[in-house]
Amino acid sequence: MDHKSSIRVPANALRRFIAEVFQRFGVKERDAQQAADVLSVADEWGIHSHGVARLRFYCEMLSEGRINAAPKPRIVRESSSLVHLDADNGLGLIVAAEANRITVQRASTAGLAAVSVFNSNHFGIAGYYVIQGLEQDLIRFAMSNTPPLVAQLWGAERMLGTNPLAAAFPAGTEPPVVVDLATSSISFGTAENARRLGIGVPPGCLIDAQGEPTTDPRELFSGGALTPLGGGRETGGHKGYCLGAAVDLLCGVLSGASWGPFVPPFPIDLHQPGRTVGAGIGHLFAGISIAAFCEPALFRNRMDDWIRTMRAARPAVDSRPILIPGDVEREAAHDSRLNGIKVEASVAEDLDRMAREHGLTFA
Amino acid sequence: MDHKSSIRVPANALRRFIAEVFQRFGVKERDAQQAADVLSVADEWGIHSHGVARLRFYCEMLSEGRINAAPKPRIVRESSSLVHLDADNGLGLIVAAEANRITVQRASTAGLAAVSVFNSNHFGIAGYYVIQGLEQDLIRFAMSNTPPLVAQLWGAERMLGTNPLAAAFPAGTEPPVVVDLATSSISFGTAENARRLGIGVPPGCLIDAQGEPTTDPRELFSGGALTPLGGGRETGGHKGYCLGAAVDLLCGVLSGASWGPFVPPFPIDLHQPGRTVGAGIGHLFAGISIAAFCEPALFRNRMDDWIRTMRAARPAVDSRPILIPGDVEREAAHDSRLNGIKVEASVAEDLDRMAREHGLTFA
Repeated sequence: MDHKSSIRVPANALRRFIAEVFQRFGVKERDAQQAADVLSVADEWGIHSHGVARLRFYCEMLSEGRINAAPKPRIVRESSSLVHLDADNGLGLIVAAEANRITVQRASTAGLAAVSVFNSNHFGIAGYYVIQGLEQDLIRFAMSNTPPLVAQLWGAERMLGTNPLAAAFPAGTEPPVVVDLATSSISFGTAENARRLGIGVPPGCLIDAQGEPTTDPRELFSGGALTPLGGGRETGGHKGYCLGAAVDLLCGVLSGASWGPFVPPFPIDLHQPGRTVGAGIGHLFAGISIAAFCEPALFRNRMDDWIRTMRAARPAVDSRPILIPGDVEREAAHDSRLNGIKVEASVAEDLDRMAREHGLTFA
Repeated sequence: MDHKSSIRVPANALRRFIAEVFQRFGVKERDAQQAADVLSVADEWGIHSHGVARLRFYCEMLSEGRINAAPKPRIVRESSSLVHLDADNGLGLIVAAEANRITVQRASTAGLAAVSVFNSNHFGIAGYYVIQGLEQDLIRFAMSNTPPLVAQLWGAERMLGTNPLAAAFPAGTEPPVVVDLATSSISFGTAENARRLGIGVPPGCLIDAQGEPTTDPRELFSGGALTPLGGGRETGGHKGYCLGAAVDLLCGVLSGASWGPFVPPFPIDLHQPGRTVGAGIGHLFAGISIAAFCEPALFRNRMDDWIRTMRAARPAVDSRPILIPGDVEREAAHDSRLNGIKVEASVAEDLDRMAREHGLTFA
């Protein structure tokens, strides 16, 4: 491997490698392929913070027995449209995909479905799940709580995760609208990146360990916290706090998973929570059948009209066209298909090391 | 009336007055009481921008025949858990309340319900609706699209409404958690207030007619727009844009109501949209039964634990305690019960005028 800042790997090769690594940790072939799909799609879409860069973390959790390599998800309660799923402490990438399949099935038959998951782990990107079921004329939703990184408005402690939520809407000839957002002002990855580059983060996005606003990304790594989406009170930080809280209640408190500051951290070496208030991480998946309200073809036409109208709005700067939610990821996916999936040099080196550790070949 | 900046009016008197005014415009007594309840609760909760201050606007719409004073909402499609409701161009305050009642009924029996409403009008505060059904162990949701005021990220035009969304979660001995937020960075009322006071709004919250960032609130009244929650790209403005878009799709495009820049304006004298893409304004109500996933008593205990944990977090400033979503409105409601509902002097004068016009007495 040369010293370029990133390399390109064909999608199939990356998928195969990830699946092979997971199998080395006791994950069954089909499950390993599922997990590899979630991670490689994240990289394909350009969301590298949630892709193969995290493979080592997942494997550490597996090798320490902190994640069950062969989970048997179990339905605890169910009706035609509601399912409560115990994820058996499996890889989120596997059990969330199973919960998501159940959601699509039930919503397709019952018209509306919600699946609440506890005893799970990180599920990767929320956007991966919501694009399933669009062909069946569903509108889709997915959300998860995550380990604490975000302070409440006016708080000085990490009390909530970045708690992502996603939704997807099928269109006609236009591509679907895919919404996927964390409820924090900036991501952990943005702060990490700024620290590496020695630059500041935008005002309002970070507090230090005393709860004071700061733009120094190093503060996040010495007891500080991200702010909720909106930043301070005057710019809507109470709204981001409300959103993050709602996701935590829907994913953690409702399902019986951990919540708030007690969600277990992802990398294995981080401080463990003081109390156990539930089992693992929680997710909520939902789907709603468009046909319950109108002819799907009519809806898809309206979606096309909405998308074209939104795209045709006057931009503030001519050279910066207006985007539709989902555009950025779709463009990255197009580039990945043409040129291979981008993998940062430092990540590629780590994958090379993992390959050697397990007698495999990477790229 | 003296020259104080605000007066206090007993809740019953305010409700009665509002109901009497609506009846003068052809609204039936029971409907008028319902509409009065929504408006007076907004004032009771301290959300004066959405309360009796808007009575004149509603009445102008009624007197011009732009809103149907005697609507007969009609179910267009339905299943046990899904209802598509034509609101017959009624006052949102009435027809949304009816749709909300249907949601609570269906969710209580089916375990999960969603009601999609079109051909409606402004429904007041979203929070009013979601506190219904908590006694029946439901988690509740409500959202609405609204006339365009918000630019897309990187946009220079008003393409989306402030599109509020609300959720409520019942607790045990603690009060419920009630989330209610607009998907814009700041509200129209905040900009209006700043203009009156001759002060600026926070950076990132406003653009002028050319799409340039500005802190001058007067720009909003000469072709400018609010920014989405998060403000610019670096501070998460793409997330607020995504949220506002999702609410517009769920409320407008799904239901068959107007959407985006084509949602009709509220005050009657404002510029009407160039195209008709649907009927009126749209809402979406939903409810999910906690019992589908766990014993409601257990859930309520967990909620109490969550609320106490969140409240006990270390504040950044000792004198500024951390709030739980719903606290501010509940404290205002407590004050309103003790001291009467606060009505701004200028609003009270307007109500006095309306009273004289209709042979009524206000306060």
